[in-house]
Amino acid sequence: MKRIFRLVLAAAVLFPATSFASGEDPSLPLLLYLVAILLAAKVMGHMSALVGQPAVLGELLAGILLGNFHLLGVHGFEGIAADPYVDIVARLGVVVLLFGVGLESTIREILRVGLSSFLVAVLGVALPFALGWGVGAWLLPDASALAHAFLGATLCATSVGITARVLQDIGKSRDKEARIILGAAVVDDVLGLIILAAISGAIVAANTGGGSFGIWPVSRIALKASGFLVVSLLLGALITPKIFSTAARLKGPGVLIGVSLAFCFLLAHLAGISGLAPIVGAFAAGLILEPVHFRKFGERNIHYLEEGLRPLTEFLAPVFFVQMGAKVDVTILASPEALWLALALTVAAILGKQSCSLGVMEKGINRWAVGLGMIPRGEVGLIFASIGSTLVLGGERIISGVTYSAVVIMVIVTTLVTPPLLKWSLTSRRQPASDG
Amino acid sequence: MKRIFRLVLAAAVLFPATSFASGEDPSLPLLLYLVAILLAAKVMGHMSALVGQPAVLGELLAGILLGNFHLLGVHGFEGIAADPYVDIVARLGVVVLLFGVGLESTIREILRVGLSSFLVAVLGVALPFALGWGVGAWLLPDASALAHAFLGATLCATSVGITARVLQDIGKSRDKEARIILGAAVVDDVLGLIILAAISGAIVAANTGGGSFGIWPVSRIALKASGFLVVSLLLGALITPKIFSTAARLKGPGVLIGVSLAFCFLLAHLAGISGLAPIVGAFAAGLILEPVHFRKFGERNIHYLEEGLRPLTEFLAPVFFVQMGAKVDVTILASPEALWLALALTVAAILGKQSCSLGVMEKGINRWAVGLGMIPRGEVGLIFASIGSTLVLGGERIISGVTYSAVVIMVIVTTLVTPPLLKWSLTSRRQPASDG
Repeated sequence: MKRIFRLVLAAAVLFPATSFASGEDPSLPLLLYLVAILLAAKVMGHMSALVGQPAVLGELLAGILLGNFHLLGVHGFEGIAADPYVDIVARLGVVVLLFGVGLESTIREILRVGLSSFLVAVLGVALPFALGWGVGAWLLPDASALAHAFLGATLCATSVGITARVLQDIGKSRDKEARIILGAAVVDDVLGLIILAAISGAIVAANTGGGSFGIWPVSRIALKASGFLVVSLLLGALITPKIFSTAARLKGPGVLIGVSLAFCFLLAHLAGISGLAPIVGAFAAGLILEPVHFRKFGERNIHYLEEGLRPLTEFLAPVFFVQMGAKVDVTILASPEALWLALALTVAAILGKQSCSLGVMEKGINRWAVGLGMIPRGEVGLIFASIGSTLVLGGERIISGVTYSAVVIMVIVTTLVTPPLLKWSLTSRRQPASDG
Repeated sequence: MKRIFRLVLAAAVLFPATSFASGEDPSLPLLLYLVAILLAAKVMGHMSALVGQPAVLGELLAGILLGNFHLLGVHGFEGIAADPYVDIVARLGVVVLLFGVGLESTIREILRVGLSSFLVAVLGVALPFALGWGVGAWLLPDASALAHAFLGATLCATSVGITARVLQDIGKSRDKEARIILGAAVVDDVLGLIILAAISGAIVAANTGGGSFGIWPVSRIALKASGFLVVSLLLGALITPKIFSTAARLKGPGVLIGVSLAFCFLLAHLAGISGLAPIVGAFAAGLILEPVHFRKFGERNIHYLEEGLRPLTEFLAPVFFVQMGAKVDVTILASPEALWLALALTVAAILGKQSCSLGVMEKGINRWAVGLGMIPRGEVGLIFASIGSTLVLGGERIISGVTYSAVVIMVIVTTLVTPPLLKWSLTSRRQPASDG
């Protein structure tokens, strides 16, 4: 508004003959990106549904299309991957999505499969790490051991956004398998942090001439992250009922959704400053909140928080997945050198996570589904790779351009295969299999 | 209740420490701002409801509190007024709000009161302009005639966000009075553009030594803005039914909300690049969409679009109003010189808009309510004033520091008096008055 008027002024004062162009109101480009994102997401989501796939697969493909339109000479969509405002809306989107998924389970239900989640997470970090290291040693024999370790690290962390969304798309987010996967993803995030800190520490130590490898910074990061989880879950569970029974007495529109979102954003923020992904905090917030807390809101507000969150998620979550797709640079697939490494990494990534289903303790669980749900590496693997490409050891970058491309391809493939595989596994088998 | 205050207090104390260590995720500060905004909005909205006022008044006051906490030595909330991400969420919020308000009327209903809206808008621009000019000539006799004209211009444009929100808060947004006000606000926006272009042109002409005053750029701006309205309404009404009956065939989650929001954002963007406020486009999009378009969506989607939009508005709209409040600098009230001018301007602003209800043609309309609904100047007056403070004529600024402060106070007062006055006028009088 303000800027429009300033623009009118600029037009009238400086260029009385030219009409005023777009782009001065900071929301104008964002509005147009959102139009493209929402329409592409819904159309491709429809295509996806036609062939029996979850909508999120269509949204990722919509993003890949929009993000690579410039290769066909159609410009204007580049901002979907690069615009900071699209990015912030996408981040809010995945936070709200994980909050909604968290709402569908309770702390108790997650703790009941806690041991399985923990074992799945540990195996799902250890095995891909070892396999990734092996792939590095095999295909990049000239690189240092630390470079191999870094490659292993890119295969560790699960990107739970995709899996959570698929589970929601196919209506399975309350299943036991879902709880094991989601719980494991939280532990995964903590383990990923620790590995990253450890490897970065080792590289710094190597660069400073074999100086002392700081065990203390690494353990502090681990303590901080686990501390956040324990404290937020304990404290949250204790004081949340009181907060919400107080909030239920507040008059005015949208108290339930407002206070709930504030709670979700607070935990997401706290997770973030503890070094964890904000979505871990949002998920924890969802776990803590239980329908019983809203009982006092009665009829005078939205019936169920989950119902009120749905349109919010339907608007915001596609922005995240389309943006994720738009960040894919398809020209990377043209590098044969990278393709071989990518193939090996992808096999390691998928096999490594399949074996993690050995950690499931309960009987009657679809172990395939657990392993498949842990496959996507999403942006987490990319973050590791991009950090590796900025670290230098002995004058060489830890992650070279080719290696980085291979990691990107591995991320694309693991992200895109998960929706169909997970859907197939959870819906085609009527009898849950208990064999690994 | 006490616990909420403790939480707010705790947030206030923790805020500086936490926002300091916000790490690399760009959403972390935004998440914390949203926590503060949502909690403060809901608590103050409650206070507001306790004394029978619309929630939006509480949200504005919450913003004024948060935005001026630094005067008490509590830092960390300054970003609510200044942070670009809060700003973008606020802009999305008011766009979604006006879309929702537009949905509650149809084009036909607005056109039925179109003549009244037009006359109300014209009178509501002409009379405050004349009164503002008069106040300038009376209290600032040494300033130039152009400065007086600029002061008049600051009193012209209605900020419809507040009024729309009050009407929604008290459940009156489908009344005839609401339609006249909202229609007039759209015309107002076009007129405001024209006046600004004309005055800026006159100043340029005066500065370049009485050069030619460009009538062509001014008329082109007017044509472009009116053209957007006519074309979008006509074309929108013609092709929208087809778009939505096609969209109804799309499978996947959230098609209705996704396609509707895309339509809203598209028109908001087009309004923006036509020089109008994006909210004018969003309102037009809401007018164009009618429940009949969604019939084909049937049961398989959200029952009514309006119901699905509600949680979205409940989350996003308070961000706009709290941010609006946070931009108020209360230290400005300490200037006695500005206070006198502000008092005169405020009286001129309110009286000028009251007389615009003479433009209402229909019988049985609550003319008071129409006049009161047009009072708020919101950010539009501020935009005029800030432009005036950057323009120089004969070596002096068109709008001096004191005058600017007076305009700011006028904006605060007109914004804050509207919710209670409008509510009183629309709910306490059982019989609609037909006397002006």
